[in-house]
Amino acid sequence: MVLEIAQRARDAALKLANESESKKNAAILKLARMLRENSKLILEANEKDLKKAETGGMSKAMLERLALSDKKIEAMARGAEEVAKLPDPVGKVISSNTRPNGLLINKVRTPIGVIGIIYESRPNVTVDCAILCLKSGNAAILRGGSEAFNSNSALAAIISKALEESGMDPHSVQMIPTSDRSALSELLKLDRYIDCIIPRGGEGLIRFTVENSTIPVIKHYKGVCTVYVDKFADAGLSEKLTVNAKCQRPSVCNAAENLLVHKDSAESLLPKIAKALADRGVELRASKRAGDILDNASIKFSAASDEDFSTEYTDLIISIDIADSIDSAIDFINKYGSGHSDLIITQDAARAEKFMNGVDSSSVYWNASTRFTDGFEFGLGAEIGISTDKLHARGPMGLEELCSYKYKILGSGQIRT
Amino acid sequence: MVLEIAQRARDAALKLANESESKKNAAILKLARMLRENSKLILEANEKDLKKAETGGMSKAMLERLALSDKKIEAMARGAEEVAKLPDPVGKVISSNTRPNGLLINKVRTPIGVIGIIYESRPNVTVDCAILCLKSGNAAILRGGSEAFNSNSALAAIISKALEESGMDPHSVQMIPTSDRSALSELLKLDRYIDCIIPRGGEGLIRFTVENSTIPVIKHYKGVCTVYVDKFADAGLSEKLTVNAKCQRPSVCNAAENLLVHKDSAESLLPKIAKALADRGVELRASKRAGDILDNASIKFSAASDEDFSTEYTDLIISIDIADSIDSAIDFINKYGSGHSDLIITQDAARAEKFMNGVDSSSVYWNASTRFTDGFEFGLGAEIGISTDKLHARGPMGLEELCSYKYKILGSGQIRT
Repeated sequence: MVLEIAQRARDAALKLANESESKKNAAILKLARMLRENSKLILEANEKDLKKAETGGMSKAMLERLALSDKKIEAMARGAEEVAKLPDPVGKVISSNTRPNGLLINKVRTPIGVIGIIYESRPNVTVDCAILCLKSGNAAILRGGSEAFNSNSALAAIISKALEESGMDPHSVQMIPTSDRSALSELLKLDRYIDCIIPRGGEGLIRFTVENSTIPVIKHYKGVCTVYVDKFADAGLSEKLTVNAKCQRPSVCNAAENLLVHKDSAESLLPKIAKALADRGVELRASKRAGDILDNASIKFSAASDEDFSTEYTDLIISIDIADSIDSAIDFINKYGSGHSDLIITQDAARAEKFMNGVDSSSVYWNASTRFTDGFEFGLGAEIGISTDKLHARGPMGLEELCSYKYKILGSGQIRT
Repeated sequence: MVLEIAQRARDAALKLANESESKKNAAILKLARMLRENSKLILEANEKDLKKAETGGMSKAMLERLALSDKKIEAMARGAEEVAKLPDPVGKVISSNTRPNGLLINKVRTPIGVIGIIYESRPNVTVDCAILCLKSGNAAILRGGSEAFNSNSALAAIISKALEESGMDPHSVQMIPTSDRSALSELLKLDRYIDCIIPRGGEGLIRFTVENSTIPVIKHYKGVCTVYVDKFADAGLSEKLTVNAKCQRPSVCNAAENLLVHKDSAESLLPKIAKALADRGVELRASKRAGDILDNASIKFSAASDEDFSTEYTDLIISIDIADSIDSAIDFINKYGSGHSDLIITQDAARAEKFMNGVDSSSVYWNASTRFTDGFEFGLGAEIGISTDKLHARGPMGLEELCSYKYKILGSGQIRT
């Protein structure tokens, strides 16, 4: 069954790669309308998933991610309309080069082909990913979590219908109709038909995908982001940026998990920053050296373990340490961080440049909150996720990052001698 | 042991990413000099490998690939000097974008990090890959074949010495000092330290790598390239381009393996092309329909099996079939080809465009030989191989394709609200 899905996806992808922008947009807009028209049906399916999940004892946070609502369906439909407005990345000439022998070599953006997306919980991912793949000319194979099976099935049926009614191959977007792990294992070996796998979910799911896939995987892994307050940091900025990076939305991957303060600033700045965090309900976990300073300022904290510094809390918790130098700050981040988003707060441009060059992360900030690592905030118009890999796409992945390229070589009889 | 090599490579990569262009070039030029100075030592080591290989009954073609000579050493040294002249790709701003909130987002080219290269036979790959990785700021872990063990060890020792004498971390390029497969399996799981694996070799080696690696792999897979002679093909061009694509160097991946002729041209063009190929010693394997035409023209051939059409002969053999339409030609190539290089010969621009859009290959040609798919011929200045993957790099991979990027975000206190 999985094999047939993959074969149909490959056939659909070859057609989809040459569909016009207007046809793709028409299908996306039709889907937006159909989501609104079928909201009752979608919510009924979602209700089934929610009941089962409640009976199974799912946590409140997870139930919230699983739950759909009229508001969330409207957001999906609006999201689709926004993507329809974005420029079509396919077919654009990336570079052009005429060789001395007269060959014209055009490097042209193409879809990747067939993309498998493995995800958990949130059923709106089904629609978001389908639309981004469609717009970029890629066929999608969606494999959501078992907990959202009914919701995803209802959404996938609507997507297929929208495609069919728009004169496109309904197999351009397909859902794996089981949440059996063996079906996933089978999918991950079909490198003959599938070009790319994007897992979105917890560490376990991503690890499973990487270990079992013979298809290239682009990982959207955890965010262990660090705020480094330099020796030459402005006090006000330090407090403001650390509070924003940690507290504005602690559940997301671009929120800060670590605070590192240069030893020369620690006495004066750390107590203020720590107090501002504690006032917002943040639990402080400090190294011995950082703890001594907090102690002196009568600020409550617990001891941070080595493991804490590489933990993504996705909660109002922060780990704190002292850096002896900018070099040791860079080393700390390259050791404990996840290569996602890291920030230096300093008034010294040379030190900022050194930090941004030395920290091996997708997004390196100077005097701005790590919370901006996001496809919309970066101006990509959309986002399928944030890659922590270094191949193909790094950081926020928009429509262009969902594309590959090919060389079109125009000759007049050139041969190699 | 493999673990320590990978850890040292990761440390070396973090330093290498910020080395200056002049320092990298000095090391590369020093290596060129040292290769020439140590040619005797290299040839002695190579002699050991050759003796062992001969005793083991290695084929003549393989022995030729394994054998070094003063001429080949001089070619390695010259290759190094050429790479030193190429522009450094690292640190270049790829794009720059000021957001409405004032954030300046620079997308900047960076090295990938640590690259593992798995290869067979040809010891000059050791030097070529080391130099391309160095120039692009990547640490390299080299794992050559057992048959070239002594040659590779001698070259790796010279590379380390050149690095050390240039004030660079000698662990920037390391060789796995064993050809044990279990060491390779261990290497392929070290995704914590290694960012990318590039296998160069036979199908078996590439398959083993893909199936065992948790590190992203860029495949340099086989080339099953097709020449399609369209309904509106020029007769002279058809003969000239097919002969060049097949015969100019049949052992390489961009040589043609299949000839496909439109049914309307077949009677008039196929006999001429086939005769020209046969005159150059090419063995013809034909489908039933193509065979009937060859029969009528009294040209010798054997029957082509379905498997023949997806076989990379790397020899003076070609498989021949007839296409009913340009669409069936495109379908044929997408079914049997390897996504490498394919050619349409036609005088009709619209049909050429259709072919180049529909064929899902890295390089699609209109009226020029497939033999041009090559980093030097494309103007990349160098080449580590030709990717048949669609992620990260497709087609010839030069220095830029050995790079990733990061976002450097320059702010003035921006927070997300």
